[in-house]
Amino acid sequence: MIYFDNAATTWPKPPEVLEAMNRCVREIGANPGRAGHKMAVMANEMVDSTRKKLAAMFNIEPKNYGRIIFALNATEALNLAIKGLVKSGDHVVTSSMEHNSVARPLNRLEKEGVQVTRVKCDGEGNLDPQDVRGAIRPNTRLIAVIHASNVTGTVMPLEEIGKAAGEAGAVFLVDAAQSAGVLDIDVKKMNIGLLAFPGHKGLLGPTGTGGLYIGEGIVLEPLKEGGTGSRSELPGMPETLPDRYEAGTLNTVGIAGLGAGIDYIMKEGMEKIRRYELELTGRFIEGASRIPGLKIYGPKRAGVRAPVVSFLIEGRDSSEIGGILDRNYGVACRAGLHCAPDAHRTLGTFGLKLVRFSFSCFNTAEEVDRALGALDEIVHKNITLPEGQGGCGC
Amino acid sequence: MIYFDNAATTWPKPPEVLEAMNRCVREIGANPGRAGHKMAVMANEMVDSTRKKLAAMFNIEPKNYGRIIFALNATEALNLAIKGLVKSGDHVVTSSMEHNSVARPLNRLEKEGVQVTRVKCDGEGNLDPQDVRGAIRPNTRLIAVIHASNVTGTVMPLEEIGKAAGEAGAVFLVDAAQSAGVLDIDVKKMNIGLLAFPGHKGLLGPTGTGGLYIGEGIVLEPLKEGGTGSRSELPGMPETLPDRYEAGTLNTVGIAGLGAGIDYIMKEGMEKIRRYELELTGRFIEGASRIPGLKIYGPKRAGVRAPVVSFLIEGRDSSEIGGILDRNYGVACRAGLHCAPDAHRTLGTFGLKLVRFSFSCFNTAEEVDRALGALDEIVHKNITLPEGQGGCGC
Repeated sequence: MIYFDNAATTWPKPPEVLEAMNRCVREIGANPGRAGHKMAVMANEMVDSTRKKLAAMFNIEPKNYGRIIFALNATEALNLAIKGLVKSGDHVVTSSMEHNSVARPLNRLEKEGVQVTRVKCDGEGNLDPQDVRGAIRPNTRLIAVIHASNVTGTVMPLEEIGKAAGEAGAVFLVDAAQSAGVLDIDVKKMNIGLLAFPGHKGLLGPTGTGGLYIGEGIVLEPLKEGGTGSRSELPGMPETLPDRYEAGTLNTVGIAGLGAGIDYIMKEGMEKIRRYELELTGRFIEGASRIPGLKIYGPKRAGVRAPVVSFLIEGRDSSEIGGILDRNYGVACRAGLHCAPDAHRTLGTFGLKLVRFSFSCFNTAEEVDRALGALDEIVHKNITLPEGQGGCGC
Repeated sequence: MIYFDNAATTWPKPPEVLEAMNRCVREIGANPGRAGHKMAVMANEMVDSTRKKLAAMFNIEPKNYGRIIFALNATEALNLAIKGLVKSGDHVVTSSMEHNSVARPLNRLEKEGVQVTRVKCDGEGNLDPQDVRGAIRPNTRLIAVIHASNVTGTVMPLEEIGKAAGEAGAVFLVDAAQSAGVLDIDVKKMNIGLLAFPGHKGLLGPTGTGGLYIGEGIVLEPLKEGGTGSRSELPGMPETLPDRYEAGTLNTVGIAGLGAGIDYIMKEGMEKIRRYELELTGRFIEGASRIPGLKIYGPKRAGVRAPVVSFLIEGRDSSEIGGILDRNYGVACRAGLHCAPDAHRTLGTFGLKLVRFSFSCFNTAEEVDRALGALDEIVHKNITLPEGQGGCGC
């Protein structure tokens, strides 16, 4: 099988990730209770060591590692960030390229009296920071932007937007679902107040991991209340972080794996990994441009982008193409709306849907060539699915 | 080490759990997208197979397996249940033995105009169903009760409470944090509308797992909005379950492990496991009753209860006892408030705190005897910690 669905979750994981998970289950399987018996203390130290690795990766002050909150996934982190910060009467600026993990929470808040401006991106998904600046109002509390589009790989100008947010006194939230572990993220340089990231994509950790960095001075309403293992006598959540936002038992085994995933990236070098993935991306774009009727959406260059490419074959149903790739050629990709209907509206593909290839450091040039060969064959031999089934609506 | 902190999370796990997790990471590491390529379909089938096992365990209609929602932990499930159902002006009946995972969400809602009655339990933690009945008001929307106390192991009379809830037209929410996989739970017989359970305790799965069963006809406001892999074009969450309440990527690897944990219980027999754990509980209670100054709180019999026992040694600090057990004897337990300050107030131990032993099917009679020997020695030789450190505030 050729796995090109890495934007959904990366696969395979480095062997070290599984080893760390096994070790955690076998040797430090206790509940990190912020104190107590030896194994609980060991579990807590392991969790904190993963926080420290994340802090180093995102240029978060080492002393602030406790301001990294673990969650089930980036979606939970985004819900905590958005709903925890914004109140009725506040204004939010966002882009027209957002994933439903940002769009749907904002859609819900809009019904509850929050004002939302969705700044239109261009046909390649690019966001003009001047347009963001122009959308800011006196009551703008939050600017929420995806770092790299999960449909086109388009990268947003975070530094300029962060500057605008800072000048306006708004909090800057970045959805790093497609960028964490792949693109450089510097919370200081980019003035990021809230950074939501998945653990199981570019960071190469297992599913069930993700988190939110909460910048100094930012206080959120917790999304969940419950046991924290600290200040249990309080009727509400304690003020200290990370406890305030981490109710209930953490996914320690997942966090152990995530730590190993980050170690792998640090050892190999994030820049080296990115360069390799963008080489594959460029190779695919170049080869695809020679296939008649294949149209790539988003940036056509492999330069500054995430290793995600979406395309369609003119006159063909994208879901069917995805199904043929899977069934006839063993190429696993994702066809549909990619949980980002607004992005597809921006690209003009809402009704069409697209086929998405997304690459990881474990893909090879040979896999890209084989997939290109498959697409070429599908076009030239006009291959169809017998029963017309395939694809997905994600 | 002797691990008696199974009420926090069970350890060790059956080897099959780790095997299932390894297999999942290696072979079905895709994102279950409700459709799409083969590996995504396989991941989805695995997730649904765990739902089906849970449905069988809790006597949920097989056709309703999709009404079991996966979450990070039971706390998240309880937050979804409580905040998703109850609105300002509604009344909630709960008990005085609740964990902070129920108490804190209710405390928060109380500030937002929800009325809460906390029915007082007796000094052993028993809840009189007549008192619950008496607390019901015309606007009672929810009755939220812990199945078995995480402090004393006291079991609540679910069937009678469920009956009262049914007659009053209220929804019955059960917190099965200490009972799922150990005590019989029958959502039909007990008239349970909402059942929150952890995956990593009695069900023997890994951390990062838990869930909520949502009975037919009950519609909740989602706690989180985001991508669902289905009906992506909708501005809000789809109406279909489980998608409506499962935003973002699930902890597939954890859910695979949970499925294996349930298989293990089914293979061994839940009743056999329970009988064994309660034998250990009874053995401990009996032995402890011969240690001078050792006072057990909650039910003194091993009959209908969860395998959890809390105690103190008169004149001694419970945190210190916990610390001595860990450092001098290698007994891992939990001393403090156990994230249940209301329960400790009910028992009259809020200021005292308690030491908690909680047993799993992997503990042995020999371990119980060794721990009893340790306690005996601590009392008779008046052993203290050099620096007076130890225990935790959980």
